[in-house]
Amino acid sequence: MNAHPPRKTTASPVRITVMDYDGSSLREHDVKDVEECVPYRDKPTVTWINVEGLDCPDVLARLEEAYGVHHLMLEDITQAHQRPRMVEYGSHVFVLARMLSRDRKESRLQEEQVSFILGNNFLITFQEGREGDVFDPVRRRLRSGYARLREAGADYLLHALLAALVERYFDVIDVIGEDLQAMDTLLFQKTDPGLLKRMSRLKKDFLTLRRSVWPLREAVHSLARGESVLVRPATEVYFRDLYNNVIQAADKIEVLRDTASGMLEIYLSTVSYRTNEVMKVLTIIATIFMPLTFIAGVYGMNFNPHASPFNMPELLWPFGYIWALGLMSAVAAGMLVYFRKRRWL
Amino acid sequence: MNAHPPRKTTASPVRITVMDYDGSSLREHDVKDVEECVPYRDKPTVTWINVEGLDCPDVLARLEEAYGVHHLMLEDITQAHQRPRMVEYGSHVFVLARMLSRDRKESRLQEEQVSFILGNNFLITFQEGREGDVFDPVRRRLRSGYARLREAGADYLLHALLAALVERYFDVIDVIGEDLQAMDTLLFQKTDPGLLKRMSRLKKDFLTLRRSVWPLREAVHSLARGESVLVRPATEVYFRDLYNNVIQAADKIEVLRDTASGMLEIYLSTVSYRTNEVMKVLTIIATIFMPLTFIAGVYGMNFNPHASPFNMPELLWPFGYIWALGLMSAVAAGMLVYFRKRRWL
Amino acid sequence: MNAHPPRKTTASPVRITVMDYDGSSLREHDVKDVEECVPYRDKPTVTWINVEGLDCPDVLARLEEAYGVHHLMLEDITQAHQRPRMVEYGSHVFVLARMLSRDRKESRLQEEQVSFILGNNFLITFQEGREGDVFDPVRRRLRSGYARLREAGADYLLHALLAALVERYFDVIDVIGEDLQAMDTLLFQKTDPGLLKRMSRLKKDFLTLRRSVWPLREAVHSLARGESVLVRPATEVYFRDLYNNVIQAADKIEVLRDTASGMLEIYLSTVSYRTNEVMKVLTIIATIFMPLTFIAGVYGMNFNPHASPFNMPELLWPFGYIWALGLMSAVAAGMLVYFRKRRWL
Amino acid sequence: MNAHPPRKTTASPVRITVMDYDGSSLREHDVKDVEECVPYRDKPTVTWINVEGLDCPDVLARLEEAYGVHHLMLEDITQAHQRPRMVEYGSHVFVLARMLSRDRKESRLQEEQVSFILGNNFLITFQEGREGDVFDPVRRRLRSGYARLREAGADYLLHALLAALVERYFDVIDVIGEDLQAMDTLLFQKTDPGLLKRMSRLKKDFLTLRRSVWPLREAVHSLARGESVLVRPATEVYFRDLYNNVIQAADKIEVLRDTASGMLEIYLSTVSYRTNEVMKVLTIIATIFMPLTFIAGVYGMNFNPHASPFNMPELLWPFGYIWALGLMSAVAAGMLVYFRKRRWL
Amino acid sequence: MNAHPPRKTTASPVRITVMDYDGSSLREHDVKDVEECVPYRDKPTVTWINVEGLDCPDVLARLEEAYGVHHLMLEDITQAHQRPRMVEYGSHVFVLARMLSRDRKESRLQEEQVSFILGNNFLITFQEGREGDVFDPVRRRLRSGYARLREAGADYLLHALLAALVERYFDVIDVIGEDLQAMDTLLFQKTDPGLLKRMSRLKKDFLTLRRSVWPLREAVHSLARGESVLVRPATEVYFRDLYNNVIQAADKIEVLRDTASGMLEIYLSTVSYRTNEVMKVLTIIATIFMPLTFIAGVYGMNFNPHASPFNMPELLWPFGYIWALGLMSAVAAGMLVYFRKRRWL
Repeated sequence: MNAHPPRKTTASPVRITVMDYDGSSLREHDVKDVEECVPYRDKPTVTWINVEGLDCPDVLARLEEAYGVHHLMLEDITQAHQRPRMVEYGSHVFVLARMLSRDRKESRLQEEQVSFILGNNFLITFQEGREGDVFDPVRRRLRSGYARLREAGADYLLHALLAALVERYFDVIDVIGEDLQAMDTLLFQKTDPGLLKRMSRLKKDFLTLRRSVWPLREAVHSLARGESVLVRPATEVYFRDLYNNVIQAADKIEVLRDTASGMLEIYLSTVSYRTNEVMKVLTIIATIFMPLTFIAGVYGMNFNPHASPFNMPELLWPFGYIWALGLMSAVAAGMLVYFRKRRWL
Repeated sequence: MNAHPPRKTTASPVRITVMDYDGSSLREHDVKDVEECVPYRDKPTVTWINVEGLDCPDVLARLEEAYGVHHLMLEDITQAHQRPRMVEYGSHVFVLARMLSRDRKESRLQEEQVSFILGNNFLITFQEGREGDVFDPVRRRLRSGYARLREAGADYLLHALLAALVERYFDVIDVIGEDLQAMDTLLFQKTDPGLLKRMSRLKKDFLTLRRSVWPLREAVHSLARGESVLVRPATEVYFRDLYNNVIQAADKIEVLRDTASGMLEIYLSTVSYRTNEVMKVLTIIATIFMPLTFIAGVYGMNFNPHASPFNMPELLWPFGYIWALGLMSAVAAGMLVYFRKRRWL
Repeated sequence: MNAHPPRKTTASPVRITVMDYDGSSLREHDVKDVEECVPYRDKPTVTWINVEGLDCPDVLARLEEAYGVHHLMLEDITQAHQRPRMVEYGSHVFVLARMLSRDRKESRLQEEQVSFILGNNFLITFQEGREGDVFDPVRRRLRSGYARLREAGADYLLHALLAALVERYFDVIDVIGEDLQAMDTLLFQKTDPGLLKRMSRLKKDFLTLRRSVWPLREAVHSLARGESVLVRPATEVYFRDLYNNVIQAADKIEVLRDTASGMLEIYLSTVSYRTNEVMKVLTIIATIFMPLTFIAGVYGMNFNPHASPFNMPELLWPFGYIWALGLMSAVAAGMLVYFRKRRWL
Repeated sequence: MNAHPPRKTTASPVRITVMDYDGSSLREHDVKDVEECVPYRDKPTVTWINVEGLDCPDVLARLEEAYGVHHLMLEDITQAHQRPRMVEYGSHVFVLARMLSRDRKESRLQEEQVSFILGNNFLITFQEGREGDVFDPVRRRLRSGYARLREAGADYLLHALLAALVERYFDVIDVIGEDLQAMDTLLFQKTDPGLLKRMSRLKKDFLTLRRSVWPLREAVHSLARGESVLVRPATEVYFRDLYNNVIQAADKIEVLRDTASGMLEIYLSTVSYRTNEVMKVLTIIATIFMPLTFIAGVYGMNFNPHASPFNMPELLWPFGYIWALGLMSAVAAGMLVYFRKRRWL
Repeated sequence: MNAHPPRKTTASPVRITVMDYDGSSLREHDVKDVEECVPYRDKPTVTWINVEGLDCPDVLARLEEAYGVHHLMLEDITQAHQRPRMVEYGSHVFVLARMLSRDRKESRLQEEQVSFILGNNFLITFQEGREGDVFDPVRRRLRSGYARLREAGADYLLHALLAALVERYFDVIDVIGEDLQAMDTLLFQKTDPGLLKRMSRLKKDFLTLRRSVWPLREAVHSLARGESVLVRPATEVYFRDLYNNVIQAADKIEVLRDTASGMLEIYLSTVSYRTNEVMKVLTIIATIFMPLTFIAGVYGMNFNPHASPFNMPELLWPFGYIWALGLMSAVAAGMLVYFRKRRWL
């Protein structure tokens, strides 16, 4: 079933790597032909098959057949922009999650879909393969013979990989948090329109983060509750711990969201306040100088004071100019008193 | 019971088509008389009766009688603007959903009500028949002998048709998403009032979308949970997958809604900011030129400097004009210093 | 117990009507004396006693005694402004609902409280009796011998009456919806303050609607779930259908509410935008003419150009006027260039 | 355990009254010494001990000992600003509620904490004793021999007292509702800043109301559900009724809250609209008179028309004045046409 | 598993104190070497080991080994910024909480992480050790031989320490509440931009408070519900009481939050209202003086009245000046009438 067609298919070729291990041995190699993966199925060791690049129907079909995977899983894997979830299909557990990364320079949030199929003694992971690899720390730990990982089953491997993914979320959240912090300081200094653009982009990042983290919470909860027999009781405690971490990530996102909308509110209030301040200055200036200019205008009228004694007799007074300046001073002073009474000054 | 009378009844005549199939055979034909539908009831093959146009009480009454359908179902089918839902009436499952389509040119969201009655070996679908047909891909798959569909029962057919409907939702959501994206870019370029009109229409589209998708979620969940014996366990996994897709559609709608209200907030902030900027320019200009014009006005008064030595003696000074220009420059400079201190410049 | 005293008691006298029926017979008459109601209690037929006007403690006390009604029910009936609910008191079911009507001309939302006491073979309804009668369609159906109603019990009668009430909600919702539609069109044409008044009244209507419909949902759900033995299983399916209708009414109210607050947001944005536009015009005009007026003012000063060659020599230049006009044009052109650069023009 | 120390302890002395009753007898007296309360413990009659004023550790300690009360209860009673709740401690039920009163003149919302300890045949109530007594109606009913109360147990007495408290909430809610109503009318008449102060105080009152009513809902629900053996089944129906009343109070508070925030929104929109209107008037006046004043200024310049034929020849034209007035009229008319086109007039 | 690396590790050295007690004896000493803690494990007395400063992997590793603590607990303890929670790991209960303190002078909210490991007869607490010690009152009560504490087990000690922590929350909430109160009074006096800065900081404090208190609620609820065998039934009633206190703290935070956002709304409305008032003054002044200045300007034009009888004949009228003043008075009066009609005066 086809929720929506895969968009922006990666043109990069498929790359398959296999790590097969138990407590004592580790075999790791790149796979040229998908057939090489099949024999691992029947070995008692834990097999991790990692598929990078999803534009490979043949490879997927072969894996489906070899490992008895339900075709609905493979459909979900190849469709982009899926919602994180955990579903149990017969004897397999399917987990879909989203990898996030944020470049500190470009400050763009990148997304990539990562799928996991957990079987009894194997784990197959699928990545789009555009954005580096979040799983490298786990690989290093496997190679270095880290006992807790090497001696545990495929379920613990799933936990370690998901934990690495969640770890990455915290990095992204921290970078965004620092961004917000920086904007908060700028906010009270100036009302830069660029701030609004950055805020607008941050708000979209929050939506992306939420869409990735919130549904994962439920998926990890299902794993932690021991709903599947594929997750051993000894591993459940680790999934519970991971669940706590995912909740914490979700919490932090909400706090950042609240912080951001608080900041926008404060920004709006600040702009409002400044407009009010600007208005006051304008009003004070206009209210003082308009009457003054009017008085000056009156005495600039060209009525002939010689035509009659009622025609601007002030012009001929010896102290006419003093009188006019006095009148102006009185008006200005009156206005200043009025402004002080209104607490505008 | 009559929640509200059917509005805008389609004047188009009723059109009934029947597809009767099993794994090996398929019979498809248009039905002139509703009686032709009755014999299919007792055949073991899967029968899909599609009724387009609901202005036909006789046809519905005959179907009710022939297939033993509860009269409440038929009442719901003929009433417009019903809420999506799944109800079990005796030995039938009734599903009501809403078909949506959005013309990219006119950008109008069109709605149509689609009802399904699932029986043991038959499925009757009812459409208003105004807006093309979302079921064509399923018909094509039936005709082409697509095994998974042809060999399954009426419950899988219900799943395929609902899936086609949900597929359409994603198309509509994508078109609206692109619209939003385009508006977001425009937002920072200009404060076009047309943007507000488009935003207002989008907000109404979100409400329509939500009203269609959210209740469907619950309906599909009921089907996925195996509440009805008419849905075989083998089909349940497909309804679970469909349920995931409906949730994803609901999620996307919420994300778009959040994006849209975020945009409106940013728009308001931008307008506020611009008003503040405009105010500043006005205030700077007024605050500089009002005092200057006042000074010019003063020296434009017609007091007679010959009347007394107190009457505008400046007019007779050899450097009176230079003095006046100097005074004006000093005032202007003072204002500019004040604005710089306030960070308005 | 007395949650709050009845306000605005209707001075109208009590009016009691009885309809007593079964599949084959119907007896309907107005009751002068409440004693006439008592004999019906022991008859196997369904008895519907409708009491209009609640200012009648004697009548209520007699009914309490005759039908064994718990006194808390009668207290709730006579108190105004009660919350819709369904409570089971011993062998009776008590349902309280609110009738709404909205006059299209006065556009006032009217409320009235309606209570139901359902017994084994009787239903007593209480209305305040101010606002016409929503039950007339049910009465007509009873008289016309509508089989589904006449042959069913008192529980089906309760369903029919509640359904008539819910039907009325849809009418009210539709009228309000049309009002909103009309306002939406006006919104983009002008910023009429009358719109705000109408919006304010609509918001209050939504609160009234919600308060009536939301709690009824729960009450009907209790009836549909078969919590009471007084509701026969055969009637439950009708209450389930009614429950769907109440949910749909609640949904529609929420959609209208969301639409209304969306409209208010858009209205605010529009006013903000227009203020910004008006400001721009003012600023452009002021910014162009203030400097020009200042220049004119300068050359209107009365310094004597004959006093010294530094005193306004321009006044004596042969092209002084042309020079002044040229200066003004240059300033105006400069401002226009500035505005175009700022995209204000 | 000490959630926070009691603040503003009432300096008033403790006052203890006892009412001891059964269906046939009633003994009521003021208690001087707490020891007088002890003998009632072992009598079969219902004993109501009311303690007013909580600044009395000795009295409380004696009651704790005599009636076997858990010390956590007494700690809660003496701490101010506690959250309403119902807790069962061993063989006692502890209920804490808040009494509210609102003086119509001062329009101050007053709070007081009221605690109840329900035992098998006794009820001890604790009040801070500052704000009159909400329990008087119950006392009067006890004295007048009201059968339902006198013949019931201590649990019914608890119900009656809580009901009296809830009754008071409705009074407070009604007073606030009338206040809101009055403000709503004022809102459209003028934008009085005093309205904002009153609105701000109302918002705080809503928070106080909510904090008192919402948690009480849960407490009464616990009593209604029959969680405690101290509440007899016959009394449960009364607590259910009380529960409905508390929900109704909570509902009304929410409606008032929604009304208040709707009013604030409308207020803001109205102020915005008026600012826009004021701006338009200013802009129209400025835009008409600034160009006119400029033209007058130009013809007020002192260029000597005799210096050259290019220097303000208009001044010497026979119809120069008429020309100037005509030019001004044309500019003014042009502006008016522009404004009409923009729909500002 | 490593949710995020510990930030700002305290450079201060580790400090370990032990209190070992039962009803009759108390031993208290500072520990130099972690090995000194080990022997207490097997004693029947209650042992409280308090570790201040977390930068000590060796010490933690030794405690892990000696007390059989699950390594996931120690990972959580050393990571900063963890979410409060209660988890049961095998035979231990792990509780993580956040200590808050707010300096009244600097008005900075300080956070510190506090972890508890509860075993059968021991409690280990871990603090970052930067911010004084909230546990001192408990220590004093232990030393003074407070019976309820000394005779109870390690579970009651956990309760006492958590209660001391919650006590501190109330102090912080009270300080913030007083701050808000003070701002509320200022709000109506002036629109100080500093208020916005303080409000912005308060909003962040609310988020910090919430993040500390809300999840603790759930943790304490787990303890109160008796989920762990380590919490004795006799102690559960104390955790229930503590649970009530945590809810009350959460409630108070919500009330303060609502108060704060109500205040911001009112602030915005006030600024809006004042801008409107300022605008009105400006408009009134401009609208009165602009026409007057224009009239003065007209009569200041230099048209030669002797050139023709149409050129400003007013200038030669005997009452020309009176006429001009009269015209101005009429215009001003007209404007004042207009403003009064619009209710601006």
